[in-house]
Amino acid sequence: MRFDIVTVLPGLLESPFAHSILQRAQKKGIAEIHVHNLRDYSTQKQKSVDDYPYGGGSGMVMTIDPFARIIEKLKSERDYDDVIFMSPDGETFNQQTANQLSTKTNFIILCGHYKGIDQRIRDIFVTREISIGDYVLSGGELPAAIVVDAVVRLIPGVLSDETSALSDSFQDGLLDAPVYTRPADWNGHKVPDILLSGNTPEVEKWRFEQAVERTRKRRPDLLE
Amino acid sequence: MRFDIVTVLPGLLESPFAHSILQRAQKKGIAEIHVHNLRDYSTQKQKSVDDYPYGGGSGMVMTIDPFARIIEKLKSERDYDDVIFMSPDGETFNQQTANQLSTKTNFIILCGHYKGIDQRIRDIFVTREISIGDYVLSGGELPAAIVVDAVVRLIPGVLSDETSALSDSFQDGLLDAPVYTRPADWNGHKVPDILLSGNTPEVEKWRFEQAVERTRKRRPDLLE
Repeated sequence: MRFDIVTVLPGLLESPFAHSILQRAQKKGIAEIHVHNLRDYSTQKQKSVDDYPYGGGSGMVMTIDPFARIIEKLKSERDYDDVIFMSPDGETFNQQTANQLSTKTNFIILCGHYKGIDQRIRDIFVTREISIGDYVLSGGELPAAIVVDAVVRLIPGVLSDETSALSDSFQDGLLDAPVYTRPADWNGHKVPDILLSGNTPEVEKWRFEQAVERTRKRRPDLLE
Repeated sequence: MRFDIVTVLPGLLESPFAHSILQRAQKKGIAEIHVHNLRDYSTQKQKSVDDYPYGGGSGMVMTIDPFARIIEKLKSERDYDDVIFMSPDGETFNQQTANQLSTKTNFIILCGHYKGIDQRIRDIFVTREISIGDYVLSGGELPAAIVVDAVVRLIPGVLSDETSALSDSFQDGLLDAPVYTRPADWNGHKVPDILLSGNTPEVEKWRFEQAVERTRKRRPDLLE
């Protein structure tokens, strides 16, 4: 799987891709993550990539040309499954989308900044618009990292323990049951007896009940 | 405003806080962001912070002690509005939550990793559990960065153009209208005439209609 991420702030994405699971996936050759500086594709003297909005108003708008240039270059090198634009008004990202994307191969991800990107970039080049949630951020960089992380960890061979991802929250439509580790008694706060019983079927039953109960209490919408 | 972020991967958070708006907010003294290595608070020989789950199953569980130690240390130094745990089963983060948090002062944010954290940490120390969306990630680090970014940009003085945040998606319950910038004609793809008219009231009317239309089409739930 390959991600080409287009941003005006490539430095912002340095450390998120250099640690933990994303680092391991790249070392194993399972995922390639390339971060491109949009300014390198500007033909303006100041390497500018934005301009004032038509119709007035606050904020700057990112121009078409630099995006068009890098997208066309990348597309001339390989086929892409999707050109994704990270945007708060895109489809809401969830585990089902992550599962679906994890079966594909190549993605371009465009990160907006400032007030937004020229609508024509979205109309002409973008095939999928994804929002990671109903909140506004400084740019699409962290959301791009979120999508890459959620997707890459699902690729077989990335997580050290294959069964771990399958029992995560959302994969079975339920939140996770609570987890406990040593000590069994911490300043009087004890682990539920059942978890110390060694009775695996009863533990599994308890975990399922706890997962259902937690989901009912916190996210009844997931049970509908 | 001050954030104390507790993680086993402090390096992962280096670059997100060193650029753009978060960098500016720190330089201006409006926000302090401190990233703490949880391992520094382990008393184990290997600086270990996790152990096997009671009741069996895959994945490791983060232990109580190191979290307890750093939380108690931080709390002895100042008061905190909330001890936040980033978790996919927490309350779903949205713009209203961001607005609300932006009026407060000090936060501890705990980042989980591996299979999860001992439930007793959540029961005893955590006052607020926040999910940035319905998907599973490698850890709470990127979600913590998301929350910090969404909140800090709302603090007066952080954004260079104060009116910009107010007209963002979600602040008025609507998605943003499309934005355009030069050129007016890009390979035959034209900017809507109204935006070139210079008729500000008509532009505002068009933008409002476009915002309503986009919201109706993409996120009818926001209009309910």
